[in-house]
Amino acid sequence: MDRDKILLTPGPLTTTLRTKLAMLRDWGSWDSDFNEVTARVRRSLLKIIHAEDTHVVVPLQGSGTFSVEAAVATLVPRDGHVLVLDNGAYCKRAARLTTLMGRRCTIVSFDEAEQVSAQVLDDQLAADASITHVVMIHCETGAGVWNPLPQVAEVCARHRRGLIIDAMSSFGALPIDAREIRFDALVAASGKCLEGVPGMGFVFIRKKVLDRCAGQSQSLAMDLHDQHVYMEKTGQWRFTPPTHVVVALAEAIAQFEEEGGQPARLARYTRNYHALIDGMSRLGFMPFLDPGIQAPIIVTFHAPGDPSYEFKAFYQAARKHGFILYPGKLTQIETFRVGCIGAIGPNEIEQAVHAVALALEEMGIASGEPAING
Amino acid sequence: MDRDKILLTPGPLTTTLRTKLAMLRDWGSWDSDFNEVTARVRRSLLKIIHAEDTHVVVPLQGSGTFSVEAAVATLVPRDGHVLVLDNGAYCKRAARLTTLMGRRCTIVSFDEAEQVSAQVLDDQLAADASITHVVMIHCETGAGVWNPLPQVAEVCARHRRGLIIDAMSSFGALPIDAREIRFDALVAASGKCLEGVPGMGFVFIRKKVLDRCAGQSQSLAMDLHDQHVYMEKTGQWRFTPPTHVVVALAEAIAQFEEEGGQPARLARYTRNYHALIDGMSRLGFMPFLDPGIQAPIIVTFHAPGDPSYEFKAFYQAARKHGFILYPGKLTQIETFRVGCIGAIGPNEIEQAVHAVALALEEMGIASGEPAING
Repeated sequence: MDRDKILLTPGPLTTTLRTKLAMLRDWGSWDSDFNEVTARVRRSLLKIIHAEDTHVVVPLQGSGTFSVEAAVATLVPRDGHVLVLDNGAYCKRAARLTTLMGRRCTIVSFDEAEQVSAQVLDDQLAADASITHVVMIHCETGAGVWNPLPQVAEVCARHRRGLIIDAMSSFGALPIDAREIRFDALVAASGKCLEGVPGMGFVFIRKKVLDRCAGQSQSLAMDLHDQHVYMEKTGQWRFTPPTHVVVALAEAIAQFEEEGGQPARLARYTRNYHALIDGMSRLGFMPFLDPGIQAPIIVTFHAPGDPSYEFKAFYQAARKHGFILYPGKLTQIETFRVGCIGAIGPNEIEQAVHAVALALEEMGIASGEPAING
Repeated sequence: MDRDKILLTPGPLTTTLRTKLAMLRDWGSWDSDFNEVTARVRRSLLKIIHAEDTHVVVPLQGSGTFSVEAAVATLVPRDGHVLVLDNGAYCKRAARLTTLMGRRCTIVSFDEAEQVSAQVLDDQLAADASITHVVMIHCETGAGVWNPLPQVAEVCARHRRGLIIDAMSSFGALPIDAREIRFDALVAASGKCLEGVPGMGFVFIRKKVLDRCAGQSQSLAMDLHDQHVYMEKTGQWRFTPPTHVVVALAEAIAQFEEEGGQPARLARYTRNYHALIDGMSRLGFMPFLDPGIQAPIIVTFHAPGDPSYEFKAFYQAARKHGFILYPGKLTQIETFRVGCIGAIGPNEIEQAVHAVALALEEMGIASGEPAING
């Protein structure tokens, strides 16, 4: 069997062996040992964003999108009105699931190369009193933009509207402090910057809005209020939890804490990011975003302008050398993405850059040339 | 660390080390290697119930209940009318999620100690032409009843109504042949009789009804039609799959096939069941159900009549000896449940019975006495 490939993708990502080894046991989902793991994970998650006093955290089975949908379904009343700040693919997905479940939804669009604007939001909220909730994506993985969370949260707080934050690919890496940022819900998942394996999400819900959430969800499986009430009463999940995923997350969080928590994780990802940008620049690759709004999570690069470039072949060539890249998600421009996250350091990034150089060589594409296509 | 306890629960259950070892690698969810695992799992699942010609199978993130809800949301039109054949807790859950999502729902109730009746269904369908779909649970885990699938399917087919089968705890163990049984959807999950780990479900959908399902789900995450179309087009899951759970299921299915498929699995579980009934009878325990309708999946026993019996203490005592039992789920009578499924054989069952004997002794409850309480 080949050595495992390094995943430079925004999740699932490369996890430590220690995290994976935690999955070598079976757990009874009703048993006190497992309940204690769930309780420990919940306590740790609250601590990461200092939300012990203000929020509860409710885990949910499924991918991160399940938790985003659950947050909207649970928090937004059936006659509520959601404004989605849209600067990318994951924003559009949030708008789509909101509309599908029958909640009124307004989309405010921004360029996918720019941050969403707190000023524009301010104007919108001033102009439309019917808007009850705002949805924003903290790090828009589509291009990699770091959106201005404190500014958006301040506007929502001032207008007294609920804020639902999709912090899927930022949680644990980018700083979030629930004592300073006011939000009604914040959503993340096991298989991102906490470096667990995929299979569960979790949603922080402000204690003050929790009671109001009863009975709002049209989905039984995604009713976070019901999940929370049951979990508080019994210590158990309502429906079968992904036990192995949960214990892997507990083990991943233990390593997260040992590493030094969010500041240390951000520092490592930032080192990865700089190693990536430096190495790829030497090969002639240009990042798509202005560095001022780029999160050190996932970087979008312009595809080489060379006519012999084709993503699938490029992907296969890099893969052959042991690295899994990620396709671009922009609608207009040919790009590809490289993740900086996971249980990897600058060594792996430098090796990845080397693999990219070999891939270019094999494809007959000269490196060092300007890499903007079109 | 203690040796792993044996789980005598209806899932999560005890899995083989080989199945768990498959989780020691990380997989890119976009990568061809992982797509091939997904494709292989889907092919194998279709083969198990001989549904290659008639059905597709769509995997879904989350617990089995997520897949039940997804099946109802995807298959039943918004103005549809669902009849739930109710003889237990999981039937009630199916009715609840149907009602919550806004589909009209009629519940036909049966005693939890009895099978649902195809004759009663026949009369109901004859009397009410508005019923579009019937939901039945193949093995009702609440008490352990083996419901009469062929008879119910025949009635639905004759009345030309859609049948949605929750085969969560029967799939892979009890015989189901899609060439003989007509159904629109059948739902099961990774962590039951296939002996994978929990974290994903899957739904078989009849090809002839698939196109009609487009746009019926109010949930984006649970839209099985959308999931299917995307998977057929790309080979990928729409949203991040629980990669480690999927590869564990692939490995579990390989062992399932090596063991001899469904007939061999049923034979082993039947041996477990007989070892359990024989052993527990020697200790004075009476099964709750008539053996004629008991599935060899999970057995409900009457709690001992002795006043010093209390489930939690009994559970803890058996647990101390290495076995995890399951609480009863009946509303009127004090019971507990013991599963026959998982990567265990009659040896483990005999040891479990021995652990129960020791537990009784430690609680000061004489074994061999009639065990009916109340």
